[in-house]
Amino acid sequence: MKRVKVSNNVIRRLPRYLQKLDELGESGVDRISSGELGRQMNLTPSQIRQDFSCFGEFGQQGYGYNVSALRAEIAKILGMDRNFTAVLVGVGNIGHALIDHFSFSNYGVKLVAAFDVKKDMVGTPIGGLIVHDMKDLSTIVGELHPDIAVLCVPKFYANDTAKILVNTGVKGIWNFTNVELDLPESSTVIENIYFSDSLLALGYYLSERIDEADAKASRKRIPGETR
Amino acid sequence: MKRVKVSNNVIRRLPRYLQKLDELGESGVDRISSGELGRQMNLTPSQIRQDFSCFGEFGQQGYGYNVSALRAEIAKILGMDRNFTAVLVGVGNIGHALIDHFSFSNYGVKLVAAFDVKKDMVGTPIGGLIVHDMKDLSTIVGELHPDIAVLCVPKFYANDTAKILVNTGVKGIWNFTNVELDLPESSTVIENIYFSDSLLALGYYLSERIDEADAKASRKRIPGETR
Repeated sequence: MKRVKVSNNVIRRLPRYLQKLDELGESGVDRISSGELGRQMNLTPSQIRQDFSCFGEFGQQGYGYNVSALRAEIAKILGMDRNFTAVLVGVGNIGHALIDHFSFSNYGVKLVAAFDVKKDMVGTPIGGLIVHDMKDLSTIVGELHPDIAVLCVPKFYANDTAKILVNTGVKGIWNFTNVELDLPESSTVIENIYFSDSLLALGYYLSERIDEADAKASRKRIPGETR
Repeated sequence: MKRVKVSNNVIRRLPRYLQKLDELGESGVDRISSGELGRQMNLTPSQIRQDFSCFGEFGQQGYGYNVSALRAEIAKILGMDRNFTAVLVGVGNIGHALIDHFSFSNYGVKLVAAFDVKKDMVGTPIGGLIVHDMKDLSTIVGELHPDIAVLCVPKFYANDTAKILVNTGVKGIWNFTNVELDLPESSTVIENIYFSDSLLALGYYLSERIDEADAKASRKRIPGETR
């Protein structure tokens, strides 16, 4: 695929478009205008046209977008047709939840193995996936050469485990450890799910909402009035 | 607190600043220039000064930033001093992992109760937290009036549960259901942790990396050369 540099904000919106187009497809909608798509997604039509123009021309003047064709294009842009494989490292609660409840295959990723240190877990399949001993990590990752490692180990082991994975040729790390990985001079793609950052952002928006409500309430009082 | 409108990108960077300042404080660093902070965070010094200028003047020309004072300011901006309380709804794997391993208190949030439908779970404490029966959700939330609900129920129940929470006065939802909540005419703050979007973004960056490496490899070949 020919590549132009696309802003992170656009890239982060692509999965939202995908989800919306899936919903539309499921409800039997087969085409949609940028105006209607914008209304449903809280974006302006020109924003939508601009986002898609980064990747070529998808819509047609006066017709709008063909839902399934646009969906297929976006899936391709996101690499969903590339048959990425992944290993999951650390089958604690988060790792277990991902294996049991997250449909990797819906996003074009095949989970091929898991790793943990717990002896009673090793060798037993979880969600159809064999759990290997963590001490065999580099050997087995070297054999399976997965594209992605889903990193769910405890914080303390995050960086050491990531280094092993990168040295064994893993190209992308999906990082659930809440630790900012320190991998200098590595071209590994790291995608972080920082729970803490998300909760703190929620705290910010909540504080903003509360302050605005307070300010509104105090403006409503008549000057000089006591309550 | 007086409020100016701050861009989402700045807000999303605040938790990263907080984490970096915590690290610096732990390593005994008590002041830092915007240049050095920028170097450590892959941001330009002017970007950093611009970010902080949204909230007032924190640094001092020629001195830089006082690490603990700046940390305290950012914590305050993020509402970490507001004693927010939270309930966790749905103690499946993700919910369980959050109770066991996520330090809500580190972010100024106190987890006060959990809810689940599973009879064997109800009444037993998990991580020091009492698990209530989901059927008592609105009654108990009405009594505890938490600021935040951590929503970890299965997809199918996401919207109905969210509606109950909003109707009972919850002001913020931390949404782990991977479902875009549909709460029209509600001023509830929703913060989503979309695992799928994150994995898809990883797929995008990985595809980009692979294509760039391929392009580089093909440029290296001498024109006319066969391999």
